[in-house]
Amino acid sequence: MLFSALLTSVGINLGLCAVFSLLFSVLRKQPGNADVYAPRFLAEGESQGTSRFELDRLFPSAGWVARAWSVSDDELLSVSGLDAVVFMRIFVFGFKVFSFATAVGVLLLLPFNYMGNQLSLDFTDLPNKSLESFTISNVDDGSKRLWIHFSAVYVFTVFVCYLLYAEYDHISSKRLACFNSSKPKPHQFTVLVRSIPALPGKSYSEVIESFFMEYYPSAYLSHSVVRRSSKLKGLINEADKVCRKLTHLKTLDHSQERFGRAGFLGLFGPKVDLLGHYEKKLEDIDYNVRLERSSKEVAAAFVSFKTRFGAAVALHIRQGMKPTEWTTEPSPDPDDVYWPFFSASFFKRWFCNVAVYAACAVLIVLFLIPVLIVQGLTHLEQLEIWFPFLKGVLRLEFVSEVVTGYLPSLILQMFLSLVPPTMILFSSIQGYIALSQIERSACFKVLWFMIWNIFFANVLSGSVLYRFQVFLELKNIPSMLAVAVPGQATFFIAYVVTSGWTNTASELLQLNPLFLSFFKKRFCNASSEEFDVPSIPYHREIPRLLLFGLLGVTYFFLAPLILPFIVIFYCIGYVVYRHQLVNVYAPKFETGGQFWPIVHDSTIFSLILMHLIAIGIFGLKKLSLASSLTIPLPILTLIFNSYCRRRFLPIFMAYSAESLISKDRSDQNDPSTSAFYEELKTAYQDPSLMPIPYPRNYDNSQTAPLLHTP
Amino acid sequence: MLFSALLTSVGINLGLCAVFSLLFSVLRKQPGNADVYAPRFLAEGESQGTSRFELDRLFPSAGWVARAWSVSDDELLSVSGLDAVVFMRIFVFGFKVFSFATAVGVLLLLPFNYMGNQLSLDFTDLPNKSLESFTISNVDDGSKRLWIHFSAVYVFTVFVCYLLYAEYDHISSKRLACFNSSKPKPHQFTVLVRSIPALPGKSYSEVIESFFMEYYPSAYLSHSVVRRSSKLKGLINEADKVCRKLTHLKTLDHSQERFGRAGFLGLFGPKVDLLGHYEKKLEDIDYNVRLERSSKEVAAAFVSFKTRFGAAVALHIRQGMKPTEWTTEPSPDPDDVYWPFFSASFFKRWFCNVAVYAACAVLIVLFLIPVLIVQGLTHLEQLEIWFPFLKGVLRLEFVSEVVTGYLPSLILQMFLSLVPPTMILFSSIQGYIALSQIERSACFKVLWFMIWNIFFANVLSGSVLYRFQVFLELKNIPSMLAVAVPGQATFFIAYVVTSGWTNTASELLQLNPLFLSFFKKRFCNASSEEFDVPSIPYHREIPRLLLFGLLGVTYFFLAPLILPFIVIFYCIGYVVYRHQLVNVYAPKFETGGQFWPIVHDSTIFSLILMHLIAIGIFGLKKLSLASSLTIPLPILTLIFNSYCRRRFLPIFMAYSAESLISKDRSDQNDPSTSAFYEELKTAYQDPSLMPIPYPRNYDNSQTAPLLHTP
Repeated sequence: MLFSALLTSVGINLGLCAVFSLLFSVLRKQPGNADVYAPRFLAEGESQGTSRFELDRLFPSAGWVARAWSVSDDELLSVSGLDAVVFMRIFVFGFKVFSFATAVGVLLLLPFNYMGNQLSLDFTDLPNKSLESFTISNVDDGSKRLWIHFSAVYVFTVFVCYLLYAEYDHISSKRLACFNSSKPKPHQFTVLVRSIPALPGKSYSEVIESFFMEYYPSAYLSHSVVRRSSKLKGLINEADKVCRKLTHLKTLDHSQERFGRAGFLGLFGPKVDLLGHYEKKLEDIDYNVRLERSSKEVAAAFVSFKTRFGAAVALHIRQGMKPTEWTTEPSPDPDDVYWPFFSASFFKRWFCNVAVYAACAVLIVLFLIPVLIVQGLTHLEQLEIWFPFLKGVLRLEFVSEVVTGYLPSLILQMFLSLVPPTMILFSSIQGYIALSQIERSACFKVLWFMIWNIFFANVLSGSVLYRFQVFLELKNIPSMLAVAVPGQATFFIAYVVTSGWTNTASELLQLNPLFLSFFKKRFCNASSEEFDVPSIPYHREIPRLLLFGLLGVTYFFLAPLILPFIVIFYCIGYVVYRHQLVNVYAPKFETGGQFWPIVHDSTIFSLILMHLIAIGIFGLKKLSLASSLTIPLPILTLIFNSYCRRRFLPIFMAYSAESLISKDRSDQNDPSTSAFYEELKTAYQDPSLMPIPYPRNYDNSQTAPLLHTP
Repeated sequence: MLFSALLTSVGINLGLCAVFSLLFSVLRKQPGNADVYAPRFLAEGESQGTSRFELDRLFPSAGWVARAWSVSDDELLSVSGLDAVVFMRIFVFGFKVFSFATAVGVLLLLPFNYMGNQLSLDFTDLPNKSLESFTISNVDDGSKRLWIHFSAVYVFTVFVCYLLYAEYDHISSKRLACFNSSKPKPHQFTVLVRSIPALPGKSYSEVIESFFMEYYPSAYLSHSVVRRSSKLKGLINEADKVCRKLTHLKTLDHSQERFGRAGFLGLFGPKVDLLGHYEKKLEDIDYNVRLERSSKEVAAAFVSFKTRFGAAVALHIRQGMKPTEWTTEPSPDPDDVYWPFFSASFFKRWFCNVAVYAACAVLIVLFLIPVLIVQGLTHLEQLEIWFPFLKGVLRLEFVSEVVTGYLPSLILQMFLSLVPPTMILFSSIQGYIALSQIERSACFKVLWFMIWNIFFANVLSGSVLYRFQVFLELKNIPSMLAVAVPGQATFFIAYVVTSGWTNTASELLQLNPLFLSFFKKRFCNASSEEFDVPSIPYHREIPRLLLFGLLGVTYFFLAPLILPFIVIFYCIGYVVYRHQLVNVYAPKFETGGQFWPIVHDSTIFSLILMHLIAIGIFGLKKLSLASSLTIPLPILTLIFNSYCRRRFLPIFMAYSAESLISKDRSDQNDPSTSAFYEELKTAYQDPSLMPIPYPRNYDNSQTAPLLHTP
């Protein structure tokens, strides 16, 4: 790619960013869009200004940037939880790493790359100069200047490791501080017990009661047995929808509006009195629910204890004589529980697990097809061979620049946007029992998917090395990567600009929810009160951020030109997501920063990858001494990583006896503890086993949430 | 190898076995040898008959066989602990597996192999017929008879898996029963705490006291801080020796004998009054010990609790806020503690670990040299090429039979006998804190060493496949093994006969201790009271047994002729080791059957290896359908294994809350508990920090074991 093509791409994306942010600053001021741009405030009942028309509403402004900037970490913590703070730390971490990298790379390495003569292009015409001359490929073979690159690799690694340590330390102390200052939460006092043995003539509930009363007489508090409830779930959801509609209908002033079509989306079918129609429907559902209520108990239960330490003891020590019975796992928060998979047998879950891994593998392989097509676009000559009739069009300079600079990453993005939902689906099939676990597992899957399908697939198919066997010859990997990686620098710069900048700006605009809300209001008679506050899709955003980190780290000494673009990306992201976290996204769960270890591991992986490439490059550039001297670097990095795993990771897995006991003691003096115990006893009722949530103003006699008695 | 060569080898070894057992039955009746053949009884003060001469003493008898046979498992359990019972179960398990295998292999497979024409040898002259005609190599390519082999592989696998499950079940229930019936033991109530944080102005002892008093006020009992004692250890050992000598000297009647030479082995140096000499020496040592006593505390301690459950809680839950502090591990029994490595820092231990693995690798590579030489012996032609001057001798039939049938395995054995002590040395450097852990780790090392260096090295160097790269091409492994393994059947039959039969019989004779005891008594003036009761070297014996299991399983359908020899080996072993465990070996530690998982894993490995060979063989024999149909077998075996790991392995790792609490409750009513607590408080004193054990009749004022006060 030429320098001018890069400029075109940057220009287009800068323009898009500007347009998006201007549009956003206007649209957010329209009161009708509050459910899109400030759903959190709306949900809390705060109105966003008056409905009265003001001229100011039509002009863009940048006040939101200042407001987003001024939100402190503590405010964010109180509003969106530790996960949001950790998410923002990724931006800060990325910014720190790549500002340093930019300083070293652009000021020190770039001039040396440019001064090389390996690619022997003419010096005069900068716009038409290939971007390759800014990469390490341009440095002469065996040149002493490569020692500067060598030192840069060492210095950068040390700097990143120092930052990684500091961040891990900071976040783990934050996590402990959050725990220490937290109010008692049900999941801290509860463990999930599975594989409860069936005793003849006793229900699971009785078996649990007698077991824990026997062995934990002082610590045991209560339990809730899990029930087979997948069918019920669907019924309840339906009832919930109907109830909402009923409430809405009742609030309408004109009785005429109560008539509508009963069919699909309210567009088809005969006209009926909707009030009567929905009331009839609700009765039917209620009848079915009563039938399903006699559902069977599952051999699993949430067992609550009087102290956090008691729960930890039950969690960490094997309970039953037979290891396959009475297995315990940490319990998620009641809101975080994912109920459908409790009833699954061990073999079903085992089979689902295997099936999911197979499906992931298939997805990765099939995804190579669009990646290969995209790669074809960056090599115009190949495209001309494939589609000869396009020859004329492609020769036009602007078209060629758009095609090579912008189109490839746009297409890639479209396909990529389908991946996170697929991975969430996969993870939810795998048998996790908490939404947060599903999201974390999906985050992992998406991350490795992206590293493989964006980084490796682009790098390898872009070069001559199509064969996959090369990965089996371990010794050749460094030199293979050294050949392949630098050649893709320009593609990845374009990718950062398109996927990084523009996607982040379009995140601000919330295009999908905006259209959805618009259509709903227009065509579905939806009230403005009927909306969900979304939660931030960590499984989509974190892998994206980490991929940019991977690109930045691996290209740091190969093609430093990519670094400023990445720094700008992290800056844009910091402002945009800080705004979104405060105004748009409400936390769905709280893992206490458990996403950070993924960030740490991914950064270590990036560093090791960079070292492998460095070993290969120095060998290729006939500076074998530097190549050999780089070998200790990945080993030292791995040792550093294993130390971090020992030092910090356990904090993210479980709390220590010291923390738990201190926290329990401070609770003892709290008068609200007994009220909390009462709450705890009913916290883990399956929502689908609760009575149907009849709306408040529909039937007052049934409002009180009756506890389900089997 | 010819059939007659095999007969020669069997003949020689049968003869040796007979000679050994005859010699044993005579020698064991001599009262002077009681310290070799019945040290356990001698140590307990039981005399072995009178010293009076009886004619019967000169005639061999077989009464010991009947006595060994009649020992029940419960007797063995009470005399030698669960480890001995588990060790004997290996013989029973092996016998069951290979009786079934012999029935199937010899009655069903062997005739079919022999009826094949692949090797097209003449049928008439059995003694000169190559043993190869009894192997699967003789079955015709593509013959339908191979389906019998195929079915045999499936049936055998199912049978072995069933036995494995039954044994695991049996032994784990034995383990639980032993725990439930055990008296309170110090290690059940104790955990080893490491990385105790140093607080300014406080000793480690105070830090521990305040931590556990704070967080486990009701369960905490006491602690003993570990001290840096490696130098002391040496001094104490010396003092111990001198004390023994003094005691011995004092019991002598003639004062003349009290004079001797003070130098090496009492053979050199000036003649002195030994009594005075040793008393002087003891005083010197005592002075040095006092100097060393001010040794520094190490950041590790044995912390004892009032209940087993309390100790388990402290063990399984992370204690300190900082994961690198207050780390806990299960405590070994006081007698089982290996003290030298406590003072080692984390980095020293880490480095030692890496160094040991490197040393193991080097040992494995260097060991290939004798193996290759041994292999040369089975291929006489090659030997004639290497040493042309031997041509004449090697042409003699008897010499050639001895050389090919007997010598190779004898040489191999000599080298192999050096391996277990080396591995114990390696394991003890690795930083384990218990003798049992060292032995278990050495057992693993020896096992993999033997599988690699006896099985694979023989198989691969015996065939054309010298190259090690073949192991990198995973797909080719089955066919490679299929080519190589059957060819070595005869070598391994000879190996079973030599190493299995004769070694086991010579185990009975205890040649080394016999000579040692003889020389000591003759030349070192050692009293007959001065002897150690040996403990059975599990790390040497278990891998040997498992290697025969591996040979039997892999050769089951390839060369069933090996099976009867293995069955006989297990029979001989059962009688011999049952006798030895009751009369000779005293248990040094009690792991509660923790050696069984090694047996289980090794058997699973053998099965998988057999399946791989079967896949290769059926492919090679042009029966690709059978080859494909064998593929599910290793997968099913692995699933079975993973089930067993979930079902049984946790029982061998730790006891469950259910067991611990029940046991604790039964103790509460026991009046001896308070006495046990007193004992527990001092159980984990480093023996080198105890006062010098002055012999009872040397200085009565210092007899009471004073507790060390720092």
